[in-house]
Amino acid sequence: MKVDLIIAHAFVLTMEGAGVGIVENGAVAINGDSIAAVGATDEILAGYQADRVIDASGKLVMPGLIDAHMHTGLSIFRGMAQDMSHWMRKGMWPLMKNSTKEETLKGSLVTIIEGIKAGTTTFCDFDHSMGRIVSHYAKIGARARVAETVNELSDDIGKLPVGELYPLDPAIGNRKLVANIKLFEEWHGKENGRITCLFGPQGADMLGKELLLEVKALAQKYDTRIHMHVAQGDREIEQMVKRHQKRTIPYLDELGYLDSRLMAVHLTEATKEETQLVAKRGASMIYCAGSIGIIDGLVPPIMDFLEAGGQAALGSDQAPGNNCNNMFNEMKFAAILNKVKRADPKVFPAWLSLRLATIESAKAIGLDHEVGSLKAGKKADVIILDLEAPTLCPIYTDPIRNIVPNLVYSARGNEVETVLIDGQVIMENRKLLTVDEKEAFRQAQEAADQISRRSRDDIAAADSDVYRMMEDGYL
Amino acid sequence: MKVDLIIAHAFVLTMEGAGVGIVENGAVAINGDSIAAVGATDEILAGYQADRVIDASGKLVMPGLIDAHMHTGLSIFRGMAQDMSHWMRKGMWPLMKNSTKEETLKGSLVTIIEGIKAGTTTFCDFDHSMGRIVSHYAKIGARARVAETVNELSDDIGKLPVGELYPLDPAIGNRKLVANIKLFEEWHGKENGRITCLFGPQGADMLGKELLLEVKALAQKYDTRIHMHVAQGDREIEQMVKRHQKRTIPYLDELGYLDSRLMAVHLTEATKEETQLVAKRGASMIYCAGSIGIIDGLVPPIMDFLEAGGQAALGSDQAPGNNCNNMFNEMKFAAILNKVKRADPKVFPAWLSLRLATIESAKAIGLDHEVGSLKAGKKADVIILDLEAPTLCPIYTDPIRNIVPNLVYSARGNEVETVLIDGQVIMENRKLLTVDEKEAFRQAQEAADQISRRSRDDIAAADSDVYRMMEDGYL
Repeated sequence: MKVDLIIAHAFVLTMEGAGVGIVENGAVAINGDSIAAVGATDEILAGYQADRVIDASGKLVMPGLIDAHMHTGLSIFRGMAQDMSHWMRKGMWPLMKNSTKEETLKGSLVTIIEGIKAGTTTFCDFDHSMGRIVSHYAKIGARARVAETVNELSDDIGKLPVGELYPLDPAIGNRKLVANIKLFEEWHGKENGRITCLFGPQGADMLGKELLLEVKALAQKYDTRIHMHVAQGDREIEQMVKRHQKRTIPYLDELGYLDSRLMAVHLTEATKEETQLVAKRGASMIYCAGSIGIIDGLVPPIMDFLEAGGQAALGSDQAPGNNCNNMFNEMKFAAILNKVKRADPKVFPAWLSLRLATIESAKAIGLDHEVGSLKAGKKADVIILDLEAPTLCPIYTDPIRNIVPNLVYSARGNEVETVLIDGQVIMENRKLLTVDEKEAFRQAQEAADQISRRSRDDIAAADSDVYRMMEDGYL
Repeated sequence: MKVDLIIAHAFVLTMEGAGVGIVENGAVAINGDSIAAVGATDEILAGYQADRVIDASGKLVMPGLIDAHMHTGLSIFRGMAQDMSHWMRKGMWPLMKNSTKEETLKGSLVTIIEGIKAGTTTFCDFDHSMGRIVSHYAKIGARARVAETVNELSDDIGKLPVGELYPLDPAIGNRKLVANIKLFEEWHGKENGRITCLFGPQGADMLGKELLLEVKALAQKYDTRIHMHVAQGDREIEQMVKRHQKRTIPYLDELGYLDSRLMAVHLTEATKEETQLVAKRGASMIYCAGSIGIIDGLVPPIMDFLEAGGQAALGSDQAPGNNCNNMFNEMKFAAILNKVKRADPKVFPAWLSLRLATIESAKAIGLDHEVGSLKAGKKADVIILDLEAPTLCPIYTDPIRNIVPNLVYSARGNEVETVLIDGQVIMENRKLLTVDEKEAFRQAQEAADQISRRSRDDIAAADSDVYRMMEDGYL
């Protein structure tokens, strides 16, 4: 059979089956946007012909990584809000209120480039003005599963004293929901199906009950998922108890929210019983190891969730307070933070991290019919890594293979040489083919310079821990 | 004044003073092996002339990183011992007993290359047959502070049932000590002073009292430091209590070991009081965040040690059970693991990690008169990073700078473009000039293939957690 491309002589991780689906000296045949076949090089070369054959000797071929939770619209503020208390109010807010949507859009592009260069091919992006951010994914050729942020908060919510109940304004909520619907109608299924849309209620504390139920009904109507922060911090739980006399998870359960349409992000403040309930109801959990580690100094209950049979995925969250969007970072942190939480080196082995960034993640976000593993019929989202990088050297294959632990615990992301998404080569020899990287960085820098100028007084007034570090010469 | 090289127009972190020593638009003048001056670009260009001026616009210039604890002789086993119990006995031992010194030497070179490519310029390497490993540092041109491993254990110690008291053999100890003395006499101060030697008693449980005291006397005689694992695991504490009816730290204190000559590695099992005692006595602590996180699922008491006024440094330890030797990895893990340990995002800010990988590390290992900061008169160990990498973009300089948090929380190590050690350019545009990388990796692979073949039966017999994962398709 004639196909467009064969990648041959590779060490292949298909991520099919219960483990990692090893094929030593394997090959992948790609036709159009899809995988035609995966198998031993001999068999693939016997059964398929292609104009282009990539000799991947000394390379690792695997499914592209899936980042199940991001806010790329915040990336322009990278490095401005960590090592501090009140990171959102004192770190982010003075910058956010002084930035334009055009400027945050420039930051978003940098993060998407960062992600692709570290092997991310599917981006679950969640942000305000997603209608504009999504154009980046269309242009670059990446796969994106996007949601518009929906809440009932006014733009000057940052002024509210800590601890006070947020005023909720249904008119604002309605306007934002309309934007989410518009996103869905304009983009869902576009770009050969690479772009799909979700609903994005920000958190149970930020929307009234009516709007939450409306979102739920819309997700059913459009047959899509809900991407939502759940029990993401003590601030949220306080708001919920004050407003509804209930913690988030029991409240959502009463509303019928905890089902397989829900991608519940963080669960940082969920009790063990609440975590088990979310798993039992069939909602998935998105675990952001690096972000919650930096912002809160906490390890969310991912192990309890997995032990309760829940479907989970890893996500990198926003750049300020992580401060990167690199799934190799997430895989390593997920593993080590949970070993430490349980004081047991056997907890969260490398293969689990790798699955939670590929096939399990695909299931958790509802895209496993298309991505997450290398299998005939799935979309050709494939990455090729250099096994001769110093971080992966040497390779053992017998009687124990060391490639998976070295991917998770040693690789930095720059081992990724080639990235294919939807059958198209997006990056080759670490050069992105669909976007001018230098120009993207130049424009992001220009935007940051503007934001910096405008936000000076507000940053000084916030008098954050970070601002004091700056004054004392620590930054 | 005429100098050899000026690096100008850079964003400079000198790491002098209490913070990070920022010089925006700064320059470094280098003459021979030393720094002639550091300051504003204008001033440096007015006061110095050089044949070569590197325009470092858009670059960050800072002191080379110091890895205060490594065992590069174990790197050939990278990725073979993690996510398991009994990592040393069941993971490492079946491989170690089937490898030759020539083979482990090949692995060592890979790790040194990995380190330099991630900005490490000073390597505190601790291993058996250091007399041979040290040649790598001489050839590559890196700075190394090396110790030979000294213990009284026979080579077949791995056969001993878990929990039994190790038989100590003074004759073996003496032979190993002689090798450490030979290392010192042959190498200390060699290569223009780049190579310095320490004494390396492996741990208080692995040497008799007499040999420990002999090592101490020799360190005084040669006026050098002692690099030693202290309270590194429950196994060690059990041995100590069984043999000496004392825990490690009180025992060492009685022997007068806890003084400023001692670099105490790990302290994993030290109580708060013991940790404070080590700090009070003036010994330094080497904290290996990634390694102890993976191997033990623990966070050593570095915060208690720092709060007691102790002098600490970060180290990457061995590749199997970390599994990398990258100080950017250590800086990020040190910060986040301690935030999580204390459930406080303000704990272990970025600047602290950066200091513990540069100037504080230099003090902890006794090389701060030569390295750890950029200052006239110090050795020219300097790294240049690309500030236009996606991980560091965008840059804010006012009213808050984001470079230090992004270095610690976002950079991966491959942002390092150029490395100078002792005034010599060792790496340029990420290409190592003093060693053939590909050939090094090829030889390491060849060695691993041999070890793999020989150790098959022993690995099967050990029946480790990792071996079972392999059988089940998880590796």
